[in-house]
Amino acid sequence: MQVNIPLKQVIDNSYDITIDTIEKKHFDKKVAIVTNPKVAGLHLAYLLSKISAKELYIITVPDGEEYKNQASIDLILESLFNHRFNRKSMLIAFGGGVIGDMTGYAASIYQRGIDFIQVPTTLLSQVDASVGGKTGINNAYGKNLIGAFYQPKAVYIDPHFLSTLPKREFGAGVAEIIKMTVTFNKDFFEFLEKADLHDKKVLQEAIKQAVETKAEVVAKDEKEHGLRAALNYGHTFGHVIENETNYKTYLHGEAVAIGIVMANETAVAMGLMSEEEAQRIKNLLQKYNLPTSYVIKDVNNFYETFFLDKKSSDASVTFIVPIGIGGVKITDAVDKELILSVLSKFGEN
Amino acid sequence: MQVNIPLKQVIDNSYDITIDTIEKKHFDKKVAIVTNPKVAGLHLAYLLSKISAKELYIITVPDGEEYKNQASIDLILESLFNHRFNRKSMLIAFGGGVIGDMTGYAASIYQRGIDFIQVPTTLLSQVDASVGGKTGINNAYGKNLIGAFYQPKAVYIDPHFLSTLPKREFGAGVAEIIKMTVTFNKDFFEFLEKADLHDKKVLQEAIKQAVETKAEVVAKDEKEHGLRAALNYGHTFGHVIENETNYKTYLHGEAVAIGIVMANETAVAMGLMSEEEAQRIKNLLQKYNLPTSYVIKDVNNFYETFFLDKKSSDASVTFIVPIGIGGVKITDAVDKELILSVLSKFGEN
Repeated sequence: MQVNIPLKQVIDNSYDITIDTIEKKHFDKKVAIVTNPKVAGLHLAYLLSKISAKELYIITVPDGEEYKNQASIDLILESLFNHRFNRKSMLIAFGGGVIGDMTGYAASIYQRGIDFIQVPTTLLSQVDASVGGKTGINNAYGKNLIGAFYQPKAVYIDPHFLSTLPKREFGAGVAEIIKMTVTFNKDFFEFLEKADLHDKKVLQEAIKQAVETKAEVVAKDEKEHGLRAALNYGHTFGHVIENETNYKTYLHGEAVAIGIVMANETAVAMGLMSEEEAQRIKNLLQKYNLPTSYVIKDVNNFYETFFLDKKSSDASVTFIVPIGIGGVKITDAVDKELILSVLSKFGEN
Repeated sequence: MQVNIPLKQVIDNSYDITIDTIEKKHFDKKVAIVTNPKVAGLHLAYLLSKISAKELYIITVPDGEEYKNQASIDLILESLFNHRFNRKSMLIAFGGGVIGDMTGYAASIYQRGIDFIQVPTTLLSQVDASVGGKTGINNAYGKNLIGAFYQPKAVYIDPHFLSTLPKREFGAGVAEIIKMTVTFNKDFFEFLEKADLHDKKVLQEAIKQAVETKAEVVAKDEKEHGLRAALNYGHTFGHVIENETNYKTYLHGEAVAIGIVMANETAVAMGLMSEEEAQRIKNLLQKYNLPTSYVIKDVNNFYETFFLDKKSSDASVTFIVPIGIGGVKITDAVDKELILSVLSKFGEN
């Protein structure tokens, strides 16, 4: 005999992203702000002047991608258990992408899921991690290999935090904006070629456009079965670069910038992009001091590392290659020899 | 400015539970059967005569509730990474509730979620863990405090596995069936008072009824915001008992049996149940050799432990008290003194 368990439901995970100075808020519940010592030192006073709670706790985890691991998750959970957080309690992710990913993941597994909101403090996390619901941690096998799809209840992007952002981190955020324009928005790409993101108004508009573009893509494909994979443009290569350099040499956005150049070379080799278009994209990356070259020591090893990446499946890797500027192709049918020949252009010389 | 991220979606997590001899199946993908040494020794040969895969792996984790922890999850994940499982790969939970909860949780966080199916081998996991999507692990603070809501793709309940089930474990499963009838199905309770679950036909019907009843409740309230809490009848007390005895003295279903008696005493004290009804339930539990008494050494300590339980919120505990037989009340407004006086009946004497 058979019993059907019917679980077809309308689930509303919608939320608002506010791009503005945070308004004062009080939460009538237990709230923990999860952050790192650096962000806390720079900006916690500002956040605490805006946000209060019935019971407020601050949890800091070590700063850096190398601490985006199970030990940090344990540290967060331990603190929540210690202070008897319950299903109605809430977390606030206060920092960059690493803090956002870990806080979201901790929220998703604490007592099978509690609310969290995001206050991203870097340009990268504002335009990227604030939309999409990807949470998780790294491990010895690679990046983001453990995690959950879990949406925040709200995101507050306050331009205030960008005032202290180092130049390199600013550039890393710009790389994600450029990524979005190349794959989905030719007009905005051409606008960026002329405009300057150091102009506050231009920047706020760019954040909005990037967030809206990503939101459109994610709304169509929340769990990355198809279109959403296009957001990985530059990431397939970028992740390998981060892996090879132990996440120490490049900021995520910088690795993505190099990855974008590699994906473009692949597109050129496939006849999908002109060399001139690839050069325009490289120019825009360089305008924000982003790295566009990388010395691959072992081409075969680089290629092998693709298969550890979570976006790869049994015997193929999914490549995101732009079609000119403003278009994108998602394919796992890229010839190995073609990729190796592209990679060998980046080989040691 | 504000951007809305629209994520209102129809999500279909429906699946079938088959209560019958498993039919032969081949999966054209990587599959890992997660089990423990004991179940594997008794029944793996049988399962492997039914199930094959393109690439098949067996992962065993230590047997017992005390190993339902992060270390076992790490062991499972490590093996999946090792063998390069990807998003299209699948897990099979093969064992009792502990195996089901851990395998489901591992599936939920591996690369942000892969498929899993359940082949429960104990009566308890067949009637209880097979419906509801609760997955997770224990930690130093208590039971199931870390986890996710994650549904299997299918459940296969094969009566074959019950043939080797020890008497105590059989009883533990019966406790969950009795739980379901007291709260939701008076007719079936009265049927059980006369029938014998050792009769195969009666048992299969009972499994079906229990699974259907739970499915109805879960479909109405997947994430336990209301009605579903009623399934915790006997569990609020039972969890404390398991906690106090370090999960060593009682099987889960046995602790629930005692918890049912305690919940009934609470109902009697609240005037919701007659002493005669409480006695009938106790009789039915005893018919299957289930424990119905427990010596509470420290009533206040017992009470305090309620608040660590994940079902409790800020300053209250949710109690599930039956209204006679076939009805149930979910309330967090039970007077502390009343509970203490009920508990003191179980005090050391």
